[in-house]
Amino acid sequence: MAVYTEIADEEVQEFARQYDIGRVVACKGIAEGIENSNYLLVTDTGPFILTLYERRVKVEDLPFFITLMEHLAARGIPCPVPVRGLDGRALRTLAGRCAAVVTFLRGMWPKRPHAAHCQALGEALARLHIAGQDFAMERHNDLSVGGWRTIYEALARLPGGVAPDLAAELLGELATLERHWPQALPTGVIHADLFPDNVFFEGERLSGLIDFYFACTDYLTYDIAVCINAWCFEVDGSFNVTKARRLIAGYRAMRPMLAEELQALPLLARGAALRFLLTRLYDWLNTPKNALVTRKNPTEYLQKLRFHRGARARRLRAG
Amino acid sequence: MAVYTEIADEEVQEFARQYDIGRVVACKGIAEGIENSNYLLVTDTGPFILTLYERRVKVEDLPFFITLMEHLAARGIPCPVPVRGLDGRALRTLAGRCAAVVTFLRGMWPKRPHAAHCQALGEALARLHIAGQDFAMERHNDLSVGGWRTIYEALARLPGGVAPDLAAELLGELATLERHWPQALPTGVIHADLFPDNVFFEGERLSGLIDFYFACTDYLTYDIAVCINAWCFEVDGSFNVTKARRLIAGYRAMRPMLAEELQALPLLARGAALRFLLTRLYDWLNTPKNALVTRKNPTEYLQKLRFHRGARARRLRAG
Repeated sequence: MAVYTEIADEEVQEFARQYDIGRVVACKGIAEGIENSNYLLVTDTGPFILTLYERRVKVEDLPFFITLMEHLAARGIPCPVPVRGLDGRALRTLAGRCAAVVTFLRGMWPKRPHAAHCQALGEALARLHIAGQDFAMERHNDLSVGGWRTIYEALARLPGGVAPDLAAELLGELATLERHWPQALPTGVIHADLFPDNVFFEGERLSGLIDFYFACTDYLTYDIAVCINAWCFEVDGSFNVTKARRLIAGYRAMRPMLAEELQALPLLARGAALRFLLTRLYDWLNTPKNALVTRKNPTEYLQKLRFHRGARARRLRAG
Repeated sequence: MAVYTEIADEEVQEFARQYDIGRVVACKGIAEGIENSNYLLVTDTGPFILTLYERRVKVEDLPFFITLMEHLAARGIPCPVPVRGLDGRALRTLAGRCAAVVTFLRGMWPKRPHAAHCQALGEALARLHIAGQDFAMERHNDLSVGGWRTIYEALARLPGGVAPDLAAELLGELATLERHWPQALPTGVIHADLFPDNVFFEGERLSGLIDFYFACTDYLTYDIAVCINAWCFEVDGSFNVTKARRLIAGYRAMRPMLAEELQALPLLARGAALRFLLTRLYDWLNTPKNALVTRKNPTEYLQKLRFHRGARARRLRAG
């Protein structure tokens, strides 16, 4: 949750006049999204979300994200729709930042996801992947297997660095994952960050998918792996196999998975755990303690990584 | 800006069923208010504000604040109206906190107030004071002259404490203000914290007064003094006499001020500067650096205090 940039009321009014969205009656910073500043923009035609893009989102990637949301929304995916201005542009400048207005989605993200939420998530994820199949733009996933060693090296260079035990463990994981990462799986647009706070529900009905600012082109099954890590572990660190089965069942009901995809899933989940462990470690060591940003404890993802490594070992012993 | 408490979606739904406000379609933490957690609660009948009362608000004071807002709203003051539940109660418990739903006010707070805003503020403040004259409840102002020495002593006991120069200055102020503080001025309900972020405008029309959680019974002119400090200094620390004149003119157009009130105003402004200097110093020294709270720099109010002390000296030399 974050609001980084303060916008003057006159700036908001002038900004809104460039759209056909009515007169602004309120604009409140909201605690949603980690990377950007988000505001609830209420006009006399209804509510919208105003996003100012902060530090981590690259300006050159914004057209990919905006076009993707338009593409998916046009195919019935319940995602925010960028609102184009009177000049036809969806991106402009406000308070020195790139800014966009998108539609407001109903619903709340589930603080305690149930198995039914996981099934609905699987269905929505498959529909997103299908809707993305004819999307023409591509964006390389810098945060997949090819990028992890770079993040690890940046981590190791930080003052304090990584404890020797953990360094050995991370290097071992890197070597294993780089060696065994699948070479060819069905590829397309993935969300890549579909955590519970990016998925809205009204009751058990999924009503919205938000925050497409990590979306990229990668293995579709990698997206399922990210979701399994984010949705199917309990607060005490235990793996909830019912939730994982419902998530995968929901997905497969909409998009059949190849045998190779099912086989690769445990390794991809292990990789997805390493990806979030590395970036959270980096943020943990690199964020000033007094920043107005919630630093996420990396330990959670270290436990998930170890779970997946153990699961592999268990399978090997059983096999 | 602050959201301290996370509420589960099921909790919000169940909470809302205790009111006649329709079905909840969204609930988003908003960056508004320093002391409490505030959420925009959107139902199918419109937007509301849901407040969870955190640490600094005393539960036993809540009936005063709630009843006051109802009283003022009934007399046409544009303040949030507490929504009573089906059981007639405006206060109940949510996520372990006292909670209330209030109406949503249109408008935005002015990041750069103009003189016209100050005039409108003065008018609204006078109307608030008039509307409060027949309010039956009382709440002692712990943060007025009788409470400052206690805060100073708490400050001096903190690890690190107060630098010797500053301690001498604060003790000198305390002695002067305690000695010269007026004994009898028109008294009633005051807001006591009417900073720009608590006042909403649509253009130059004042559309809302919010955050009544410092409201208390005190000299009406003290409320003007708080506003002069909060609205009539520029970012560089200079005093804008035009803004102060417009604020006072707006006030006097609605409620005539006694000669004693006008005469006391400079001293009350000096006291109001000391009040915010003391509490900001306390928070500055006492808030963990990694808390998700914006610590306000006390220096701003030290400069204002010195301005008012100098203004008095200038008047004495001129007189």
